Amino acid sequence: MKTLLLSKNDVAQCLDMESVIVAVEEAYKTFQRGMVTQPAIQGMSMEKFHAAMDVKTCNNNDTDQMSMKIVGLYPGNAKGEGKYKTSEGGILPNMMGNLILSDAQTGATIAIMDSSLITGIRTGAAGAVSAKYMSREDSKVAAVFASGAQARNQIYAVSLVRDLEEVRVYDKFGTPEGFAAYKEFIESKTKAKVIICDTVEEAAKGADILVCPTPSREAYLMADYVKPGMHIIEVGTDADFKNELEPAVFGKADKIVCDSIAQCIVRGDTQNAIKGGAITKDDIYGEIGEIVLGLKPGRESAEEITIFDTTGMAIQDNTTAASCYEVAVKKGIGSWFEFI
Amino acid sequence: MKTLLLSKNDVAQCLDMESVIVAVEEAYKTFQRGMVTQPAIQGMSMEKFHAAMDVKTCNNNDTDQMSMKIVGLYPGNAKGEGKYKTSEGGILPNMMGNLILSDAQTGATIAIMDSSLITGIRTGAAGAVSAKYMSREDSKVAAVFASGAQARNQIYAVSLVRDLEEVRVYDKFGTPEGFAAYKEFIESKTKAKVIICDTVEEAAKGADILVCPTPSREAYLMADYVKPGMHIIEVGTDADFKNELEPAVFGKADKIVCDSIAQCIVRGDTQNAIKGGAITKDDIYGEIGEIVLGLKPGRESAEEITIFDTTGMAIQDNTTAASCYEVAVKKGIGSWFEFI
Repeated sequence: MKTLLLSKNDVAQCLDMESVIVAVEEAYKTFQRGMVTQPAIQGMSMEKFHAAMDVKTCNNNDTDQMSMKIVGLYPGNAKGEGKYKTSEGGILPNMMGNLILSDAQTGATIAIMDSSLITGIRTGAAGAVSAKYMSREDSKVAAVFASGAQARNQIYAVSLVRDLEEVRVYDKFGTPEGFAAYKEFIESKTKAKVIICDTVEEAAKGADILVCPTPSREAYLMADYVKPGMHIIEVGTDADFKNELEPAVFGKADKIVCDSIAQCIVRGDTQNAIKGGAITKDDIYGEIGEIVLGLKPGRESAEEITIFDTTGMAIQDNTTAASCYEVAVKKGIGSWFEFI
Repeated sequence: MKTLLLSKNDVAQCLDMESVIVAVEEAYKTFQRGMVTQPAIQGMSMEKFHAAMDVKTCNNNDTDQMSMKIVGLYPGNAKGEGKYKTSEGGILPNMMGNLILSDAQTGATIAIMDSSLITGIRTGAAGAVSAKYMSREDSKVAAVFASGAQARNQIYAVSLVRDLEEVRVYDKFGTPEGFAAYKEFIESKTKAKVIICDTVEEAAKGADILVCPTPSREAYLMADYVKPGMHIIEVGTDADFKNELEPAVFGKADKIVCDSIAQCIVRGDTQNAIKGGAITKDDIYGEIGEIVLGLKPGRESAEEITIFDTTGMAIQDNTTAASCYEVAVKKGIGSWFEFI
């Protein structure tokens, strides 16, 4: 049988943010309906290289498709470390990995694809799904505390569900070139104007939507900066040693929503809020799928402070990869290989 | 960069049991020296199809190579269920999956290969490594309680470390054709004569090495059958609902050795012995790597009853896949694809 192979460039031709937002909503609904078998994430750190990777696996019992994704961050790549180069001879990107999509009935490998873009885009889409259901409909100003790839994905995705007019960016590690590239990207893809800020507080003050996509190990978003009506997308903290939000931010929130409560109380910033004593597990309002399915209301007033904590679920990769595969087959993109 | 793709046929050309026994010994040593990062196994059952799969992941900190293996048993394949066929148009084998071998420094995907043969062969090799260190050197008679692929691998591998003269086979689900094929395989590959037995007891009685490679959910190897001097390879039980050895077999043993104690007390038959009250965790003698490294003696007398409990470790896949990759590159086997 033939397995479809999709390179990163192939995947880029098959995925757009609009369709991935649909795929991620579908993922949340499927998860909430109890149709996902999803074992605990496998994670490894390669301290020698300051690198870390995860394996996220699940079966979608609706479509009978399994997915296993390996993806990691290899910071040495940006410095040109290691002996491998891209097919064009360039340095490897920091995010690297593959995804295997298989048939749950026979174990047949349907497709193997680069997983870095899928991870980046479906993570951006997750924030947008939360903004669609939990941010104020009149949200105009977004703040983001990084200027890298995920900061692009998040803001671009949010701009598809809310009419952003202003995007404020603060990045502790930002460079003038990085900020300029960020500004150019966002202003070319959305109607918003980008403002570079000097402090977290300056960016956060008066914003409607706050996006936290950093791998910070120390809280930087303080409760003082958080005001009624704000929606916070907490996406950077996905391991027990990371932290972006001061626990008191959770204490102030009216609605704390997780993608998976089981994951977020172990790997998300929710864990830090619980450890810090700001909330207990019972203070979590629910999972995003409950809101998407209409089982629980999302935002109910202009004053609510809402937090979406996402650590990323295998089922998001699964539905996104399935959509990518379908588009690739339709468009004739990719190569085929017979493993068996 | 180029990733090497190896089909099942390609893998078959690169692996032989002798070299995999070496790779598995290396795996056990590396594990014992604390050079393996190995997260807990991910497992999923697809009840609808009576199928089950595992994901085994690790990093070899000696070679800086990571491996992630997905492999599963899909019993419907033997009945021709599902829509996929092999490249030759035949039905798919029951065991299906892939393995990704990557560079831990950069995350670069070095190779992607079929994982079914690797799993089968490295599992056979594991039994042989235990026989080499734990069975009597003058072992002549082996008994095996199945007649499928793993029963072939186990006996063939043991024959490479012990001069087997007789192999007794009992299979509750055996067919005349299956027994004939088994006999032909073993007699063509080893110097042993194969005897088909009608009961477990008949096969076990007086054997030197007993191999339990079935997915049985009920104990069939009873303590009464186990006599001084025997070595038992317990390889079939790899999940909490499986069981081959009556707990009292463990109670009778002088040395209980696991591949990974952490895994075997959760997924191996050791768990059943502990649950059954026949032993406690403290009765486990050690891990096979300690014996291979010479930190603890293996068999010390002709009378000892020894058990090796193996649930299979990711590091076995890792060293086996690395060896397969090296041979493939040397021989020019496989195809290349640029994911990035």
